[in-house]
Amino acid sequence: MPKLSERAHAMPASPIRKLMPYAESAKRRGVHIYHLNIGQPDVETPAEFWNAIRDFPNRTLEYSHSAGIESLRKRCVESYRAAGLEIETADLMVTTAGSEALIFALLCCLNPGDEVIVPEPFYANYNGFAVQAGVTVVPIRTYIENDFALPPAEAFERVITPRTRAIVICNPNNPTGTVYDRPQLEGLREIVLRHDLYLFADEVYREFVYTGTPPTSVLSLAGLEGHAVVFDSVSKKFSACGARVGFLISRNHELMEAALRFGQARLSAPTLEQHGAEAALDAPRSYFEGVRTEYMARRDALVAALRTMNGVVCPKIDGAFYATVRLPIDDGETFARWLLEHHVFEGSTVMLAPADGFYATKGAGKDEVRIAYVLGVDRIVKAMECLRRALATYPGRTCEQAVAAGV
Amino acid sequence: MPKLSERAHAMPASPIRKLMPYAESAKRRGVHIYHLNIGQPDVETPAEFWNAIRDFPNRTLEYSHSAGIESLRKRCVESYRAAGLEIETADLMVTTAGSEALIFALLCCLNPGDEVIVPEPFYANYNGFAVQAGVTVVPIRTYIENDFALPPAEAFERVITPRTRAIVICNPNNPTGTVYDRPQLEGLREIVLRHDLYLFADEVYREFVYTGTPPTSVLSLAGLEGHAVVFDSVSKKFSACGARVGFLISRNHELMEAALRFGQARLSAPTLEQHGAEAALDAPRSYFEGVRTEYMARRDALVAALRTMNGVVCPKIDGAFYATVRLPIDDGETFARWLLEHHVFEGSTVMLAPADGFYATKGAGKDEVRIAYVLGVDRIVKAMECLRRALATYPGRTCEQAVAAGV
Repeated sequence: MPKLSERAHAMPASPIRKLMPYAESAKRRGVHIYHLNIGQPDVETPAEFWNAIRDFPNRTLEYSHSAGIESLRKRCVESYRAAGLEIETADLMVTTAGSEALIFALLCCLNPGDEVIVPEPFYANYNGFAVQAGVTVVPIRTYIENDFALPPAEAFERVITPRTRAIVICNPNNPTGTVYDRPQLEGLREIVLRHDLYLFADEVYREFVYTGTPPTSVLSLAGLEGHAVVFDSVSKKFSACGARVGFLISRNHELMEAALRFGQARLSAPTLEQHGAEAALDAPRSYFEGVRTEYMARRDALVAALRTMNGVVCPKIDGAFYATVRLPIDDGETFARWLLEHHVFEGSTVMLAPADGFYATKGAGKDEVRIAYVLGVDRIVKAMECLRRALATYPGRTCEQAVAAGV
Repeated sequence: MPKLSERAHAMPASPIRKLMPYAESAKRRGVHIYHLNIGQPDVETPAEFWNAIRDFPNRTLEYSHSAGIESLRKRCVESYRAAGLEIETADLMVTTAGSEALIFALLCCLNPGDEVIVPEPFYANYNGFAVQAGVTVVPIRTYIENDFALPPAEAFERVITPRTRAIVICNPNNPTGTVYDRPQLEGLREIVLRHDLYLFADEVYREFVYTGTPPTSVLSLAGLEGHAVVFDSVSKKFSACGARVGFLISRNHELMEAALRFGQARLSAPTLEQHGAEAALDAPRSYFEGVRTEYMARRDALVAALRTMNGVVCPKIDGAFYATVRLPIDDGETFARWLLEHHVFEGSTVMLAPADGFYATKGAGKDEVRIAYVLGVDRIVKAMECLRRALATYPGRTCEQAVAAGV
């Protein structure tokens, strides 16, 4: 039998999805699961989206343009402009979800063996995309004690090599919930210009900021026209994760022209959902405000519960719908699996994502988990009670020791 | 401004789509275009598909499983079994169209710099996927004079090197319409076993065979369980190109397990269309029979028209809905562009795909074009009349010389 490639062996299993077989087995035993492992919100997709799908006028489901349906691109550009970000239609390409936007950017901007610097923990699938593109992720640690703040310029300067081609940030951040402010981004701007790097910004959670201050896009940073590349998506914005419609945005026209050639090879993004996404962009502001209010309430319930648990460290969370928290446990993956295999409280258990898969540094994040607060407040409260009971009985807990040591 | 990668420069523009700006410009001038450049059929997507989309029960469009919706996988496996191909659910993964199935297979089975052997002309986007995966396409010529028949074993043996990892075939063939029979495939089987190679088979046109004999899948070849990898799609089968739902099929479980990890990185294929595809698999046999009868009539009309044109070579076409034909012209791309810029007959022109983009051998296929017969018979007839007139006036025509030389 022929062998698999080296990259097939190197491709990591998703820390968000790898425990799914244990979850399926728990469900078969009749255990209800609070899915806090995956950023799959329970919020309804806007009615505008569904109406457009229902009223789709054609009887043949055709390919779309490789850069996306033009009216969607124009409508999306309008929404960027309304947010004060001056882009043109040529600066925006529709991709098959945000994932493809990032893959195209890596393929277009980096040669195999080149390096991207990413503050860690980071969205775990960046590791997978890096394997797929044959590039090396160079992590810079951020720390829970410091609310996972962006590291200072020196930390970036220290790891820049002749092979460094890009810095990747996610803002608001998945998995930490951190929001980077303008002065921090201006700092990145200086580094990027000094070393002639790309600045890739995953901004898919831009609608989810709870500080009252609008988030800062890298597109608003002066002088980065050739450097800034933004990934956006309808998955979270419209609670339409299954739509697989995303956007690659850059004012670097050479890059956009190259990305289009990658896009032509795969022909087009899904037609129906592009149609739905265009309509969803007309959802009233009240839709987003309602969603934001709901997530703030969920965050507050989550944080309140976590902060009463012995030995749990929960940092400040300003955006997105994730928290990376430290638990008084030996190992996040063992614990998450134990929750699915052995823990039941009131007929339910909790599914979490072990945080070590969100780090590139070996051994980092072992006692952390990522919690996606994508359930209603009542269910968040119940899930946290279920977690509290688990922490009291888990065989690998370290709480008593931590408490004994005065932590 | 930072530089683009080498692969960004190497990624070819699609020969099927690169002339789109000229087509758009012609449309703006009021010229109607017969689109024979792209395999976008005008046939209706089955009613079962649309009904399922309309009746989609959820209000939140969620991710699906990374391997695809399980009921769709099971239903698809049933349809394979009904065709005599014994596969299990674990042997089939849903991908974002056939394109992604091929990309995943290349990534999982080949290291960068490894080689795939492909009979040429081949589906042009294979070149793009090879650039994306960093692998080398080694072409073996097939010839229009010989109806683009599969080359003999010696031709494959001659180009096999220590870096050869796979042979890729497309059967029924895009862009030639050739259908490989069982003895030919048995020949490939021997080569693949002798050199421990993968056999990748793009079988997305399996429903479109006009010989009266059911097509042979590589899945039916004995002893290739670890070697055979099939790419399938709903795009052509259900005239649902915009759905972006495809399938990766192999009994090599190590490969399927690796492909799932690539799938997890991109999360999932589009949810709505998977739902539609599952329903479409229940379309009655009469749907496929009707479609097949329609395409046979189109092929017959196309071939009849082409064979009356001076200097045109049209080979035997047994499947898919493409013909690669030789025209009495200097250069396919120049001619295809000229058609869009300068030719109008009864208010219309024809868009063709230059065939040289379907070859990896430099300079090959210069006087060939690919014609997709995806329009109704009446329109095929009109488009061919439009082409005949073009061949009589095109400045770069070589017909008079060809006729003078007795061709």
